[in-house]
Amino acid sequence: MAVYTDVPPEELSRFVGGYDIGETVSCHGIAEGVENSNFLLRTTRADFILTLYERRVNPHELPWFLGLMQYLAGQGLSCPRPVADRAAATLGTLAGRPAAITTFLHGAWPRDIETFHCEAVGAAMARLHLDGAGYTAERRNSMGPAAWPPLLDACRASGDQVQHGLVAELDDALAFVGPSWPGQGAHPALPRGQIHGDLFPDNVFFIDGRVSGLIDFYFACTDWFAYDLAIALNAWCFDAHVAFCPDRARAMVRGYESVRPLGAEERAALPVLATGAAVRFLLTRLYDWINTPPDALVTPKNPLDYLGRLRFFRALTTPPEWL
Amino acid sequence: MAVYTDVPPEELSRFVGGYDIGETVSCHGIAEGVENSNFLLRTTRADFILTLYERRVNPHELPWFLGLMQYLAGQGLSCPRPVADRAAATLGTLAGRPAAITTFLHGAWPRDIETFHCEAVGAAMARLHLDGAGYTAERRNSMGPAAWPPLLDACRASGDQVQHGLVAELDDALAFVGPSWPGQGAHPALPRGQIHGDLFPDNVFFIDGRVSGLIDFYFACTDWFAYDLAIALNAWCFDAHVAFCPDRARAMVRGYESVRPLGAEERAALPVLATGAAVRFLLTRLYDWINTPPDALVTPKNPLDYLGRLRFFRALTTPPEWL
Repeated sequence: MAVYTDVPPEELSRFVGGYDIGETVSCHGIAEGVENSNFLLRTTRADFILTLYERRVNPHELPWFLGLMQYLAGQGLSCPRPVADRAAATLGTLAGRPAAITTFLHGAWPRDIETFHCEAVGAAMARLHLDGAGYTAERRNSMGPAAWPPLLDACRASGDQVQHGLVAELDDALAFVGPSWPGQGAHPALPRGQIHGDLFPDNVFFIDGRVSGLIDFYFACTDWFAYDLAIALNAWCFDAHVAFCPDRARAMVRGYESVRPLGAEERAALPVLATGAAVRFLLTRLYDWINTPPDALVTPKNPLDYLGRLRFFRALTTPPEWL
Repeated sequence: MAVYTDVPPEELSRFVGGYDIGETVSCHGIAEGVENSNFLLRTTRADFILTLYERRVNPHELPWFLGLMQYLAGQGLSCPRPVADRAAATLGTLAGRPAAITTFLHGAWPRDIETFHCEAVGAAMARLHLDGAGYTAERRNSMGPAAWPPLLDACRASGDQVQHGLVAELDDALAFVGPSWPGQGAHPALPRGQIHGDLFPDNVFFIDGRVSGLIDFYFACTDWFAYDLAIALNAWCFDAHVAFCPDRARAMVRGYESVRPLGAEERAALPVLATGAAVRFLLTRLYDWINTPPDALVTPKNPLDYLGRLRFFRALTTPPEWL
């Protein structure tokens, strides 16, 4: 949760004046998103989200992200739609940072996850996968399997201080997942396209039990559709004690397949994809845990939440009964 | 040219105390590199470079970059070698940013490029390509051909204000380069591995006419070796009036082949790779040109320097006489 950047009022006013969206009424930092600074921008016309891109986002990749959001919104998906300024540009500069204004989505993300949420997010994800088909520009997943060994190496010195034996367990997991990944050796490639890549509960808004919008597309990339589902199984289908909730997983898959049925190869690959997703979030959280100074504004997330998930998915027989 | 971040002395002292490199004597910001904050750190033991990673570098990718530099230095290549702290980590946090200390390389980059520089940089690049072979972790090129169409779209509204007809010329170039890229359609894939990706004159140090070191590996990635050469042909082989210097190109290829001979398919692909490299730098510079506010600390580079290069390489017959 973070607002990193303060925007001087006169700079804000000049920036907003470049858009045909009315006069600024108020602009408040909001605690959504840990990667960028987000503001609720209220004008005489409507509410908007103003995003200042902080570290972690390569400015040269912003056009891909904003282009995807614009494309998906045009397909009827409920996601933030970048607003073009008077010169037709969706990206500007504010307070020395790349900045964009997007439409405001109503709704709230679910604090207490129930089965129906999982079914709904499965369906919304499948729609995103179908809707993205006409956005042909590709973005490789910079946090895919190739990125994991160097991350683990960077955690080698301190990883076992977080939990004894963690580094060896991660070595073992990488040795299993790497050669088992779709497209490696005899493992077939899977249907692929634009995926969200980070469809955690705080990125899905609900109103009255129905999905009202998907946000935060800054991990989106072009990858296996089933990997997006594998990430969401990690993110939604465990309780606070990291116990797997088969009802949630069953509902999520059912919701997904109500829109886009999974192929046999995707189904067979889900356990290894879900194991890989657990490794990916365990590694990035471990890395942040080790590298976040005690006085930082951002509280790192506990990596060990993902160790339980990793163990669960690695132990799966194929196919698990909930699939 | 930029030092973005000030480091309070007590924080610096605590940070340096985590390493076994002696006591800090002085620490001054240096105007090398536009992506990160670099400091010349002098201790009672030696000189080092202290780098604070600013925007544009995904912290989760830093282990790959530092791992590559460490690996290449271990192979005997003269490049900054990350220094491990007392806990064996090469990455830390300073002033709220990821930070690393690397060895200091002597030498200076050539302000007046002569033919012998080009021959030497060709040879140094080929050694890098061979030396990287044992570093098996891959990093896809985030600024490869897939990234270009969205960048061009982001420049569509204002691009022609930089030069009339520029957007149409870039559309045309993309329509040519995309389908002609190695690995597309009937175009063969080429030998690939770790490449520098940004081997411009300011990233190559010389002493007495010989390469003393390569720096700035933060665009390194796993891609066609010949694409690295194509980038360097753009970067080194034109004069200040953007006139091509065939002697320099001939020398660069000769230097490269003195270490690693090019295959026939690499040679045949060089004109399209060099066209693509011109497109890539033209696009990222155009994007920065459009998106850098007038009062920014960083002066954007003129994108039109690369329009002349693009036209030159597009017009090449295969094989050109200098190849």
